[in-house]
Amino acid sequence: MAKFLTSREENYSQWYNDLVVKAGLAENSAVRGCMVIKPYGYAIWEKMQHQLDQMFKDTGHCNAYFPLLIPKSFFSKEADHVEGFAKECAVVTHYRLKNDPNGGGVVVDPAAKLEEEYIIRPTSETIIWNTYKNWIQSYRDLPILCNQWANVMRWEMRTRMFLRTAEFLWQEGHTAHATKEEAIEEANKMIRVYAEFAEKWMAMPVIMGHKSETERFAGALDTLTIEAMMQDGKALQAGTSHFLGQNFAKAFDVQYTTKEGKQEYVWATSWGVSTRLMGALIMSHSDDNGLVLPPKLAPLQVAIVPIYKSMEGLERIRQAISGVIEKLRKAGITVQFDDRDTQKPGWKFADYELKGVPVRLAMGERDLENGTIEVARRDTLTKETLPLEGIELHIEQLLDEIQENIYKLALERRSKRITKVDSYEEFKTLLDTKGGFFLCHWDGTPETEELIKNETKATIRCIPFDAPEEEGKCMVTGKPSHRRVLIARAY
Amino acid sequence: MAKFLTSREENYSQWYNDLVVKAGLAENSAVRGCMVIKPYGYAIWEKMQHQLDQMFKDTGHCNAYFPLLIPKSFFSKEADHVEGFAKECAVVTHYRLKNDPNGGGVVVDPAAKLEEEYIIRPTSETIIWNTYKNWIQSYRDLPILCNQWANVMRWEMRTRMFLRTAEFLWQEGHTAHATKEEAIEEANKMIRVYAEFAEKWMAMPVIMGHKSETERFAGALDTLTIEAMMQDGKALQAGTSHFLGQNFAKAFDVQYTTKEGKQEYVWATSWGVSTRLMGALIMSHSDDNGLVLPPKLAPLQVAIVPIYKSMEGLERIRQAISGVIEKLRKAGITVQFDDRDTQKPGWKFADYELKGVPVRLAMGERDLENGTIEVARRDTLTKETLPLEGIELHIEQLLDEIQENIYKLALERRSKRITKVDSYEEFKTLLDTKGGFFLCHWDGTPETEELIKNETKATIRCIPFDAPEEEGKCMVTGKPSHRRVLIARAY
Repeated sequence: MAKFLTSREENYSQWYNDLVVKAGLAENSAVRGCMVIKPYGYAIWEKMQHQLDQMFKDTGHCNAYFPLLIPKSFFSKEADHVEGFAKECAVVTHYRLKNDPNGGGVVVDPAAKLEEEYIIRPTSETIIWNTYKNWIQSYRDLPILCNQWANVMRWEMRTRMFLRTAEFLWQEGHTAHATKEEAIEEANKMIRVYAEFAEKWMAMPVIMGHKSETERFAGALDTLTIEAMMQDGKALQAGTSHFLGQNFAKAFDVQYTTKEGKQEYVWATSWGVSTRLMGALIMSHSDDNGLVLPPKLAPLQVAIVPIYKSMEGLERIRQAISGVIEKLRKAGITVQFDDRDTQKPGWKFADYELKGVPVRLAMGERDLENGTIEVARRDTLTKETLPLEGIELHIEQLLDEIQENIYKLALERRSKRITKVDSYEEFKTLLDTKGGFFLCHWDGTPETEELIKNETKATIRCIPFDAPEEEGKCMVTGKPSHRRVLIARAY
Repeated sequence: MAKFLTSREENYSQWYNDLVVKAGLAENSAVRGCMVIKPYGYAIWEKMQHQLDQMFKDTGHCNAYFPLLIPKSFFSKEADHVEGFAKECAVVTHYRLKNDPNGGGVVVDPAAKLEEEYIIRPTSETIIWNTYKNWIQSYRDLPILCNQWANVMRWEMRTRMFLRTAEFLWQEGHTAHATKEEAIEEANKMIRVYAEFAEKWMAMPVIMGHKSETERFAGALDTLTIEAMMQDGKALQAGTSHFLGQNFAKAFDVQYTTKEGKQEYVWATSWGVSTRLMGALIMSHSDDNGLVLPPKLAPLQVAIVPIYKSMEGLERIRQAISGVIEKLRKAGITVQFDDRDTQKPGWKFADYELKGVPVRLAMGERDLENGTIEVARRDTLTKETLPLEGIELHIEQLLDEIQENIYKLALERRSKRITKVDSYEEFKTLLDTKGGFFLCHWDGTPETEELIKNETKATIRCIPFDAPEEEGKCMVTGKPSHRRVLIARAY
């Protein structure tokens, strides 16, 4: 079989880049740090979007759309937010070009300078809370449960396709509530929606928890996260949900009249996932032959390759398989009968492997005689020859099985690489030799967190929801700790 | 009934603005010329998107995503394109803010000036053809049939919500073909997709035709358009499809190897519709009571208002209607049982009228006794009391009937206001007294077109596909003409 990719062992990072490009997911563009999401990559993102959107609607949210540009002054209104977001960002200063008087194409027209600059949104809390101010007068106007699908921009210095790009696509939920309890409940509900999506759809196990104070979203009182382990043992933050307290309501003066007639500031949450999930999906399951996609997110679930010597042979195969194709489509499965005569079967097999198509069927002229068909699984790379009769039911079950299996494999990989460590020396050694996630006691101070980060490049990923209470001593300072936190190097 | 709106007769323009705001479709934002699309407006746009996306996929297109920012120099590469697009646009010149040393919030960091400025895309031909260059080597790589759902920005001086905003949402199809014929066929196919969507989904009759040379898209050899008549008689360009020839292929040096081994420039099309369709939808059907939505695009198709004196009465109504609700939902109809106790039935009736919900049911305690229900149609504002038994089938049919009826009404309105005129004097008089569309002979010159525009503010909307060959004389110059063109004042 043709090998398209650098192997993971040889160079994990290069393997990832190769895969993104060669599987037709994305490529770098002429714009610094911005990618082009190619049709196959976008088709996977669309499937993610579709399911997430349904889950948001099922939990009572609706979509809306807010401006791309944000007046510069808005960022200064929330003190922490400006520190976190308003720095590395694209700034619009002018609104017109003109012909270069020296004939060199077009130049910025200095007469068209904006009085106040606009920032391309790096996130939309400020413009949205400035809008919510007009939507909220009374407790009757609450809650507001809005989501936005949008592009955002952060001027990142080092970019990698899907994982960290200057422009990326995401959804950002922004909700407004009458009480603190309701907002906290919302933030919790949405991190659980993300976890469910990650586990059931992406087949990617995640650990839910609270971010440390240092790692919180700029302007949040609490940031909840889902953390996934990639195949190289590094962590990837796959989604976050923030309890924003009354910070944005105070910054934009959003108050409501309670049932009792009092004026109160509104409570807020925000939560988002982005095209970063594409990177997480790729690095969770794929192998040296290419992508491995969970059937629930695969744009093409079943590819059928006819192996024939003559056009008449092709037609006989087509006829033999047509009933199966119809039944699979009726069951909501996407199927493609690949009768291209420009490529040989072996090339097609390798290409479907590269693209991560979960099930590949092949039918030759001998299969026709025997009433059989070859069924190949992408996840295990195994094949078997089975009776054609009733194969559609087998395939339906097989897709479910693959979905479960790749989740199980990812979970097993993770289990092997979560280590409880009590000594900082051991931690440093194992971090380099074994890698993965570490459960350690930490004294809860930003100073110790900073020290660990500076010395090891590992960060506190989260304080897991399910971390049991356990008396221990910080592995660095020996100070008391009441539960273990999750530490890892991360993307 | 409460009147929320300025009447159309009193002030059509104010009626439109009132309606957009009061029906909760959109509102102006803190960013000049940019609107916030509110949840109800966005829900309609989502329904449009969903159907259009399906139609694009059914015609073989797939989605992709290209960068928001375009290097300034790209615009200079296609001579006509730069004239049409690169002038009034948002220019990104810097990539960082910093704290104001004088303590005044944040300021643009002069050290973070970009070497080459970026333009926020007003349309994406240039960045896409720069990308296609890498995708196309051989005839085997063609055709490329991509679409993008995106936000774009044009720094318009006078803006109106949905109709003309600085930022708007749209889709832009960009296709690449081996032959001229295939590209022309694609451009034709897509304007027909738009026409079908406008007529069957928006219930909005449209006239398909070619734009005059002056009105063509910047860089196109031919622009096809669908033109709709609004209730005030003005035209609205609702969608365009462009045959771009080899202009962009030449500008970005995109050649392919033919089967015969020759190098040829690639042929291109592009086509788009935008949130402007929301404005068209509103102005096609709505009345002084509010929106009138075609059932196929109504986020809520059936609203049920219980009229009760006691909680026990409400429960009895709820029970009586629950089977109907279930059956309607099974038939794919969106239904809401409005048991809010914060509002009176009369207020709810008016609100559903304002929001354009196609069918409103009301059930009171007397209906319970009689086994009846009141059915109100939004399009005709008529009501009738009908037996509850089997009402779901009646409602299904009624939704189809409303869809057809509002199309028919729009078509009738248009028919009454399309006038054939042969004298320029008569044209000018009728334009002011009767308004609407005019079919006139024109000598085909940009000079005459310009004169008509300057003297009357009417423009040549299109040369209709179905304009019969007919010898005549230009109404302005008397020069020969072979078919009538469509002239109107336009949005």
